[in-house]
This record gives sequence, structure tokens and C-alpha cells, in this order.
Amino acid sequence: MPSETAEAVREAVHRGTAVCGGVAIGPLHVLRGVAVARREAAATPQEEVGAFRAALAAATAALEAVLAAEDELAGDILEFQAALLDDPDLIEPIAATIALGTPAHDAWAAAMDTEIAAYREDGDPVLSARADDLADLRTRVLLALSGGEGGGGTTPAGAIILAVEMTPSSFLALDHARIAGVATTGGSPTSHVSILAKARGVNLVVGLDTVPDETLEGATAILDASDGTLVTNPAPVTLGEAEARRAAGAAARSAADARAADPAVTADGVPVKVMVNIDDPALLDLIGPAICDGVGLTRTEFLFADGAPDEDTQFTFYARLLAWADGRPVTIRTLDAGGDKPIPGVTFDGEANPFLGVRGVRLSLGRPDLLRTQLRALARAAATTPVPLKVMVPMVTVPDELERVRALLAEAVAALEAAGTPCATPILGTMIEVPAAALTAGTFDAGFYSIGSNDLIQYATASARDNPAVASLADPLNPAVLELIARTVAAGAARGVEVSLCGDMASSPALAGALLATGLRVFSAAPAEVGAVKQAIRASVSNAPEDGGDA
Amino acid sequence: MPSETAEAVREAVHRGTAVCGGVAIGPLHVLRGVAVARREAAATPQEEVGAFRAALAAATAALEAVLAAEDELAGDILEFQAALLDDPDLIEPIAATIALGTPAHDAWAAAMDTEIAAYREDGDPVLSARADDLADLRTRVLLALSGGEGGGGTTPAGAIILAVEMTPSSFLALDHARIAGVATTGGSPTSHVSILAKARGVNLVVGLDTVPDETLEGATAILDASDGTLVTNPAPVTLGEAEARRAAGAAARSAADARAADPAVTADGVPVKVMVNIDDPALLDLIGPAICDGVGLTRTEFLFADGAPDEDTQFTFYARLLAWADGRPVTIRTLDAGGDKPIPGVTFDGEANPFLGVRGVRLSLGRPDLLRTQLRALARAAATTPVPLKVMVPMVTVPDELERVRALLAEAVAALEAAGTPCATPILGTMIEVPAAALTAGTFDAGFYSIGSNDLIQYATASARDNPAVASLADPLNPAVLELIARTVAAGAARGVEVSLCGDMASSPALAGALLATGLRVFSAAPAEVGAVKQAIRASVSNAPEDGGDA
Repeated sequence: MPSETAEAVREAVHRGTAVCGGVAIGPLHVLRGVAVARREAAATPQEEVGAFRAALAAATAALEAVLAAEDELAGDILEFQAALLDDPDLIEPIAATIALGTPAHDAWAAAMDTEIAAYREDGDPVLSARADDLADLRTRVLLALSGGEGGGGTTPAGAIILAVEMTPSSFLALDHARIAGVATTGGSPTSHVSILAKARGVNLVVGLDTVPDETLEGATAILDASDGTLVTNPAPVTLGEAEARRAAGAAARSAADARAADPAVTADGVPVKVMVNIDDPALLDLIGPAICDGVGLTRTEFLFADGAPDEDTQFTFYARLLAWADGRPVTIRTLDAGGDKPIPGVTFDGEANPFLGVRGVRLSLGRPDLLRTQLRALARAAATTPVPLKVMVPMVTVPDELERVRALLAEAVAALEAAGTPCATPILGTMIEVPAAALTAGTFDAGFYSIGSNDLIQYATASARDNPAVASLADPLNPAVLELIARTVAAGAARGVEVSLCGDMASSPALAGALLATGLRVFSAAPAEVGAVKQAIRASVSNAPEDGGDA
Repeated sequence: MPSETAEAVREAVHRGTAVCGGVAIGPLHVLRGVAVARREAAATPQEEVGAFRAALAAATAALEAVLAAEDELAGDILEFQAALLDDPDLIEPIAATIALGTPAHDAWAAAMDTEIAAYREDGDPVLSARADDLADLRTRVLLALSGGEGGGGTTPAGAIILAVEMTPSSFLALDHARIAGVATTGGSPTSHVSILAKARGVNLVVGLDTVPDETLEGATAILDASDGTLVTNPAPVTLGEAEARRAAGAAARSAADARAADPAVTADGVPVKVMVNIDDPALLDLIGPAICDGVGLTRTEFLFADGAPDEDTQFTFYARLLAWADGRPVTIRTLDAGGDKPIPGVTFDGEANPFLGVRGVRLSLGRPDLLRTQLRALARAAATTPVPLKVMVPMVTVPDELERVRALLAEAVAALEAAGTPCATPILGTMIEVPAAALTAGTFDAGFYSIGSNDLIQYATASARDNPAVASLADPLNPAVLELIARTVAAGAARGVEVSLCGDMASSPALAGALLATGLRVFSAAPAEVGAVKQAIRASVSNAPEDGGDA
């Protein structure tokens, strides 16, 4: 029963989509579009140009301060902004306009609006993300012009940030060590912001069914990033329960993390390998290899963020990753572009259903120049480690695709050998993420199998992984999904090669029991989840019936 | 070796996508954008208004002449044009503009350009198709104004029509009895034009890798609509081989069609049911029910072409279909909108991957008002026939979806009974087109199963059915596809209910052997293919191994 206090503020539950994290409790901080005070133009155009250059310098300094504290992934985004501030082709015409009498505020705003419109024009999602960064930069400089700091503003300690939408740069501008979590009305679990949040362990809920309301500023709130809810003005009993869950979650996580480096052995004594997924070079600085049995998946798309990298750039990263792993097995996936991962100049535009189109190996075989360069870099990296490098191919549907990649790999190795360049032939494996491939896994001449559960689920249930309207159908515990996994495990056993699973299922402690029941013995999880997944494995028996939760 | 004649015109092979039909040979007729001579304005605006009204009358007469010879599906398109010509809200403002001194040519062209832009504006594919019809109408009236006929022009007898793109109305304007086939550089196998061609048995190849070239006018050509090629200026030996294939195909088809009404029994004596797919009410006038063992699929989307139809409109068609079937079993599918079948005001816009989104039963359960009306109409129709009506639900992924439809059906029947309206409860079955549903078919409480092979293939192989770049991966003979079909057949046998297949596989004689080998004993084919499919079944043994061709 709600209390009958006269001015009692009512508890309200807002629902969204859980991205990552657990329970957080704190005061709400509503993030509004930044209000920029208009700068009064100086007495002379020359003074105005001076003010403009001073604002650019202030904005650059603010960016560099954030940059120094951030990692490579964040750096890509912020460096893009810093590079623009330092680009005379952009800046000098604006300065010239100001010198002719236009106030700096107007000249900068108009020039940026033109740039933003150009980036947004063709609807390309990557360019459009860049447009968000530009809008961010527009505000940053206007703030600096009007005497503001050009930085991220102040945030109360322990606050839960509530916003309509966050750009990657506005997300990075937050002080993650000080905040309790983030909730947005826009956004999706697969957005760039969500990937950043997962890598940093920030509690995040997106797609909230409420619009941030200034009257909520400072109100107490409970963010449950495991079930995707935000409770504002909780009643004392709700708050008590949430605090108990938060404490239990924190204790469990702390206990799990304490044992993260210990082996995972099921309650009935079966050892299970837990590897990590690497999707960001910055992770190599944040975690040590001791918590894992190797790298089960390296996503190489980040290398292509600014277009195709050359062979040496790729080789340098692959060799660094192998050195980091310190003798543990490392699996690197060839470029998996297309679908929801467009790369300008590489992927196809205009497909009506990109998830069912030219992506993964289909794209690589259609752009053999890119694949050849990647295979050369991989073969060179393979020579830098005593443990065989494992290379896996995404979106394989029929055995012929794997054989065509093998032929290109053999060509690359032969050419390197002929040139006297040190190289070795990696073990070639196949991802299993297309239902037809799972059902015919035994017919692939694969050195190993790696199950991509996210795509496998979306195809098996015909439910797009980025469409909230069909999220309930994309059920990892659908018996058909578990059968496709079990079939792949059986095919690997019959052929005597390893089968691992690197999709989100392997990062979910609630699903560990169900996965063990399929016969799976190699998990590859997000680094932040390794401790919790190992604990779940320790609490399960290897032949458990489907006992997974409803994660 | 090519001949060495001095002015020998070289044989050239152009590749495209086969839509329907076989081999045709004839002179090419290149269809160009119609050149409209500009009409000299009359001496007075009043005379010009008179000329405008005369042109409208001529265009209307030309449309009505085509309409009289065409069926309902074609009628929908042409009636839309005729209705516009008769719409005073459109016509009178134009006449008023002309009366004020604007030449009729300019006034009509400007008004239609505005209309066309409005239809094209929001990128909706249905409205955009209407815009094509409007562009057609614009030309038709301008031709009539300049003294042209406003009709389809003349086409040489037995010609192969070569065009960049065809609109439905330009396709219908062709005299199908006189032409040998159609080849276009644009278009797709699932376009409206392709559906019209299949229903009419017109040889059609789309997506040709050549641009129509006026120098080809009148050149001899071979159109192979079974393998998707167009050979221009064939060498004598090529022509001889093609003529032999054409004659053999025609003879086989003629023999098959002669036996279309006979039962299909395999070479080893197993009877097989061959039903028909009905996707156009006009088919009921074109074919008799004697050629089939019933209706395996009725697509009800055509009823929704102009928005949701009322209950009586639906009931009238369903009852007419049941009367046509004359006691044979009839299966009607509930609305299967979404994916590549948008319906304005019904389906969701803006899904990144509509084939993996809210379509079929997912949409029906999200719009229960539409489903309720359809179920009421179906329950009323079920009372008009002594044979139980079969109703099937598309895109079912989990058993709960079927149960929710069953509950709505029970409600509809109870309400009709309470009102004293004659009704009966149809048998409720499920389509199997999602891989997860095929693997778990035995867990559905279905009165029958109907396999939708087109979608099942696209999901099992993760290859969009409308994307030519992945067409080779969408292989009906992939062992995984055949296993999913066999699993469904086995589930039906275990539960004692019928399993049929109504996708394109059942219409392909080359695949009959492979389907029989899965245990399938009920085919539902396009009416034009029934004879050929029955012949293929007669030539196969029931336990044939996978022996399908490469269709």
C-alpha cells in the first residue's frame, strides 16, 4: 500500500532494455542539451578573431585533458574532434569570415552546421555517428567562446545520469569512476555507447519508456541494469530491497572477481576453459591474461574504423596481442563487416536486409584484396609465437567458403615464403552462426569451431538482434538454439577439434548451466564477466538439464 | 570457332535472373522511354481546354480497352489510373489553369509531376509503385494530347521485349498472347511485374547485365527464362540447340498439362497430393479445380492492397473460394504482411531488417483488431462448406503464438454464435518457415503443418530471398534445408497430422525427387506448374535420394 503522507512523491517504475551491469542506487542527474550563452561580439573583427582562436585553444585543451585519461577506443573519437580543431582547411576560412565582420559565434555555428549536414546527408550510420561527434564539437567551441569550460560539466558524485540520448563523446566525457550508472530513453544495446559501457563496466539501461524530466533532478533512484528498470523516488521498502540486491550483487561480483584467475571446474569435477573476447586494443592495457585460458575471439573490425589498415598496422596489433597472451592460445577473426557493422568504402549500401546480405566471409570473398592483406598480416604474426595462431572465418554458410579462404591463405603464405618474410600457417577454423552451418558442421574441414550465438539465435528465430520488438522471440533458451549448439559440439567431438562459444550467451552466468548441458566445454566471455561466468560454472554440474535463467 | 564472315554480327550472352518460363526465340523489340511530341497550343484557351478533355477521353478509352481484356489483379492497377482521369478534384483545377492560358501539355505535366513527387516523397514502396503508375498515366495523356494513341504501341509478333524497367501497367499493356517473352535490366524476381508474369505464364528474365541498345532492335535472340540468359545474334549452332530445347520444353509441358488433372503417383506407386497456391482472385476464373487436390495456400495479402478490408468483403471472397474448390480441402493463410510485403497503415516502417522483424503472426498479434476481423470472416466462411476449412498462421516461431491465435479464434466463434451468425471453427495449422519452428515442430499443437520453403531457406542460410548477391547461398538443396523439411514431415507423422509444402520448391519439377526423399507427400504448387510437377513426381521414386537438379 502506498503511504498516505500528504506530499508523498510517488514511486515510479520506468522500463527499458538492460545493457550491462547490476543494481545502482543514487541521486538522478538529468543531462539536458547544453544551453550556450551567446557571446557579445568584440569591438573589432581582429579582437573577435582573437577570441575565436582562444576558444579553439580552450576546447582543444579540454579535449586533450579527457584524451590523456582515456584509452585507445575513446581516443579514436576524441582525436577526430581534436584533429578538426587543428585543421586549417576548416578553421582558416572561418577566421577569415570573422575578420570580415561576422561574429565568431555565428561564423563557427554556420560552418559546423554545413559540415554536420554533409555528414548526415546520405544516411550512412557511420558518417551519421561522426555527425554526432561534430555536433558535440560545435557546442564545445561555442561554450568556450561564451566563457564556459568546453568540458563535460559537473556531475554529482554517485549520480545516475538520465539523458535522452548520449553520443560516444558525451558518454566518454562523464567521469565513470564518480557516477553510479547511466539511463537513456534513446539508444540500443548494440550502439557504440553500449559497447563502451560494457568495456568499462558502467551500469547502463537504454530505451527507457520515460522522457527525462527536470523535476527529477536530485531525486533518489534505483537503476537495475540487469533487468532494465529505473525506479524513481522509491518507497523505503523498495529501497531496502534494492540495497540488499545491490550489496549481494557487489559481494558476489567481488567474490567472483577474486577467483577470476582460478580455473573453472564444474561441481562434478569437469574442467571448463574460459577464454576472453577482445574487441578493443585498449583492453590489453586494462586486464592481464592470467584471468583467462586464452583469447576465444578477437574482433578486428576496430582496425578498419577509419578505412582499411595496411598490412604492417595489422601485423603490429596481432603481434602485440600474441605477446600479451603470453603463450595462451589466441583466436583472431577475419574482418566481419556488413550487417550492422558498415565500413565506408567496404560494405554494401542499400541492402533491404543487411543481416541477410553480403557480410562476414561473403564480403571478404567479394573484396579479396582486403582479405589477402589481412591473411598476410596474420601469417606474419603467426611466426612470432610458439603457440599456433588460430584464425576464424565469420558467417560461413557452406564448406566451399572456408576452402576459398584456405586457398587465399596458402597463396599468402607461399608469397611471404618466396620473399623470405618470416611467416607460419595459422590453424583455420569456422564460426558457426548460420543455422545451415550448425546442422552441417561435420562437413566443414575446420581446425576448430566457434559458435557465434548472437547471430545463430537471430537466424534460428528470424528475429533481428537489434530490433526490440522481436527481442522476446530471440530466446537463447529456445530448444532449437540449444540443439544447434549441441549439434556443433557433437560435430567437433566426432572430428576431434575444439568447439567454443563466443557470443553473449557465454558471458551470461545465468546461461552457463544450459550451455554445459549441450556438451560445451569452452566459453569465451567479455573480460568483465569472466569471474562471474567461472563462478556459475563452478556452481553447475556438467550434465545439468536446461536450467538457465531468463536472462 | 566464330565464323569469319566479314560483317558477322557477334553472338553475345547476357546474364540475368530467371523469374519464370522456359526457352523463347524471336526478334528483339527494344522498349524505350516513350518520346512525346509537344502539342502546339490551340488559338484560344477554350479550344485548349477542349483538346485536354478530348485527350482525357482518349486515354480513358485506351485504358478501358486494356481493362476489358484483363483480370482482377491487372484491373486494380488500371482502375486506379482510370479513376484518376475521372476525378474532378484532380482534373478541374488543371482545366481551370488551361482556361487561363497555360498550354494543356504544360498544365497536365506540372500537375502530374506534383502528384508523383507527393507519392514518392516518403520512400514507401507501395506508394512508390503508385508513383510509377502515375508516371505511366502522365505519358498516356501527353501522348493522347499530341495525337498519339495513348495505348501500348505496336509490338512485332513473337517478339522478345527488352526494356530497362517495366511498370506493372506497361507490362499489362503488352499483348501477352503475341510476345515470346520479356527481359529487363532492372527488376527483381519478387516484384509486382514478376508476380504478374508468373500468373500469366510469361517468360521473364530480370536483372540483365546489359543496357538495351537500339542497334539490337529486330535482332534474333534466345531468351532462356529457366537459366536467366539472353543470347543476342546467336550463331546457327546455338540457335539450333536452343530451338531443340524450346521444342522439347514445349512438348514436355504440353504432355504434362494434358495429364494435369490425373493423380500424381510415384514410379513405385506412392500417391502424392498436389494442391495449388492461390494468390490472386483472378486465378479462380482462369483455372478449374479439377487439376488439383485442393488449395494448399491462399495468400490473403491481395485483399489488403488498398488497406484493411471489412469482414463482409473478406467473407465474400473466402466463400467464393470454397465454392470454387467444390468440396476439395482449402487452406487460407492469415495476413502475412511485413518483410517485403508492406501495407500502408498496417506494417512497421523503418526496420533495419524487415525480414527479421515484425511480420506475419508477429504483426497480427500486434494488431489484433485486423486479426479478429479476419478470423470472424474465416469462421463464417467455414460454415458454408461441408469440408472443414483449414486456416494457417505464418511466421510462427514458438508454440505460444499459435495458442494466442487459437484463443482469438475461439473468442470470434463464441461472439458469432452468441449473435446467431452461422459459423464453424476452422482447423488451425501452423506454417513452418522459421528454423527454430522446424526443429521444434512436434511441440506445436497444430492441426496441420505447411512448410514455407522460401523463408525457411532464407533464414537457414541467412540469405535474403530478394538479394541477388547471396542467391547462390540460398540453396534449396543445402542438406540443412532438406533436414529441416524432413524433421517437420517426421513431426507431422508422429502427431498424425498432414504436412504440406507451399513454397517455390514445390513448384519446381527439378526438386520433386529431393522433396519426396524427405518423406513429403503433399505439394502445393503454382497453378501453371501443376502439370509439370505431377509429371516429375510420376518419374520419381518415393524414397529417392537427393537427386534434384540445380534449379
